[in-house]
Amino acid sequence: MTRVSIQGDRASFHDIAARQFFGEDTNLVFCETFNETVDVLLQDKADYALCAIENSLYGSINEVYDLVLKHKLSICGEVYLRIEQCLVGLPNAKLEDITSVFSHPVALAQCETYLDENLPRANRLEYHDTAASVAMIREKNDATNAAIASKEAAELYGMQVLAQSIETNKENYTRFVVLSTKQEDVTTLNKTSLIMKTDHTPGALHTALGSFASRGINLSKIQSRPIVGKAWHYMFYIDIDVGANETSCKDALQDLERQGCEVRIVGSYKSGR
Amino acid sequence: MTRVSIQGDRASFHDIAARQFFGEDTNLVFCETFNETVDVLLQDKADYALCAIENSLYGSINEVYDLVLKHKLSICGEVYLRIEQCLVGLPNAKLEDITSVFSHPVALAQCETYLDENLPRANRLEYHDTAASVAMIREKNDATNAAIASKEAAELYGMQVLAQSIETNKENYTRFVVLSTKQEDVTTLNKTSLIMKTDHTPGALHTALGSFASRGINLSKIQSRPIVGKAWHYMFYIDIDVGANETSCKDALQDLERQGCEVRIVGSYKSGR
Repeated sequence: MTRVSIQGDRASFHDIAARQFFGEDTNLVFCETFNETVDVLLQDKADYALCAIENSLYGSINEVYDLVLKHKLSICGEVYLRIEQCLVGLPNAKLEDITSVFSHPVALAQCETYLDENLPRANRLEYHDTAASVAMIREKNDATNAAIASKEAAELYGMQVLAQSIETNKENYTRFVVLSTKQEDVTTLNKTSLIMKTDHTPGALHTALGSFASRGINLSKIQSRPIVGKAWHYMFYIDIDVGANETSCKDALQDLERQGCEVRIVGSYKSGR
Repeated sequence: MTRVSIQGDRASFHDIAARQFFGEDTNLVFCETFNETVDVLLQDKADYALCAIENSLYGSINEVYDLVLKHKLSICGEVYLRIEQCLVGLPNAKLEDITSVFSHPVALAQCETYLDENLPRANRLEYHDTAASVAMIREKNDATNAAIASKEAAELYGMQVLAQSIETNKENYTRFVVLSTKQEDVTTLNKTSLIMKTDHTPGALHTALGSFASRGINLSKIQSRPIVGKAWHYMFYIDIDVGANETSCKDALQDLERQGCEVRIVGSYKSGR
């Protein structure tokens, strides 16, 4: 059975994403941090690691970009998940009796408007994981406590969904990447992630992007990150909507090489959208 | 006297940067978070806010980019500071007796190699601020405690520098920006910050960057951030090495407008480098 390390507990959004990508018959290794998730992969205690790399509201998760670089990991797949938050209470809880709401700080922030309007006097208390906050309030067995988490977490722990889809902004998606220590053979490639360093001269980025633009290759993402040890020099994490085995991609990469750019292909895979 | 809100305590790196930019005769308002620092500015309890926006190792501080956008703040200056960390102890402390080291998690991480080599058995304990960790260990008055902070923090609290420049990577600089609710009249403009949204079509970013490249205008920074409510669409925070009053800059902005880009000038100011 495929072993996959993820950050988070059972019924966390990472868990949902992992089961969506790998199927239900997967041996998941639950980790507390992204660092630990990747360590498990490096120690060969997992075949893949699955990590959130970007949220449509929050932006890039730099820690994951940096881990991909540091350990020369390859990206061999991706999953997009709509993040729908629920207010979860004990089976006998009533919305009007809730006085404390527990969740991960990001989830609390995403549901601020709902809480302001519906539970203005309830205390908002931070917890390390959305799903774990459901387990915790079940343990406490106090019907005035609620948690913010996925519907799946409520089901797993036999709890009640007091309100569904309570996040302020519905355009709330997270992109997860499947990481491996090996370059995978994927049959359908239509997306490629790469890391690019250009010359440190005016116009260098413009020229580099021309290698893609002139071939009609779309960039779905460009993210700058500092080059450690070279203050104010940057590398670029770029996602392009084309497989690395296509002629246009190979030509673009040759162009970049000719310009003196350093390029590493992080992975070519099937788009998850 | 000019009133400036900063995140951090007396002798924090924000404090040092603020006094470097505004001089010693400045009325500093010490805040706990970036949010509070900007709130103080918005409530007119400060004339300026000074916030770190980027570190050469850590990268961009997205929270500050997002606050600039949300409150339509202008950038009217910048300061670069070399971040030099010291191991600080009580006046009677000895390096070999230290068993606990307190500091901000980023500072602890920056000095990991030094701690591994010199104090492998000491506990590393997180605290909310580097300078405040010095005040705290002075209060505890236990010579086995040390803190990681600036030389200035050691001096302010009458403490001893046990080791200087203990950060692993010496190319450790932070860029701070001076924020205002008004557009300032600055006499020497040689840098401009702007926020740009391009069309969501292949090659749009390449074409937009051509407006700068064709005029020899150097980009010192480009940072993508998600557009809230439009999943996987991005805006770009761009810094260019030219004043907004120069013809080349005005021409470039006209070009961008013709291409259908939305551009907001966040500020034009004197480079701090």
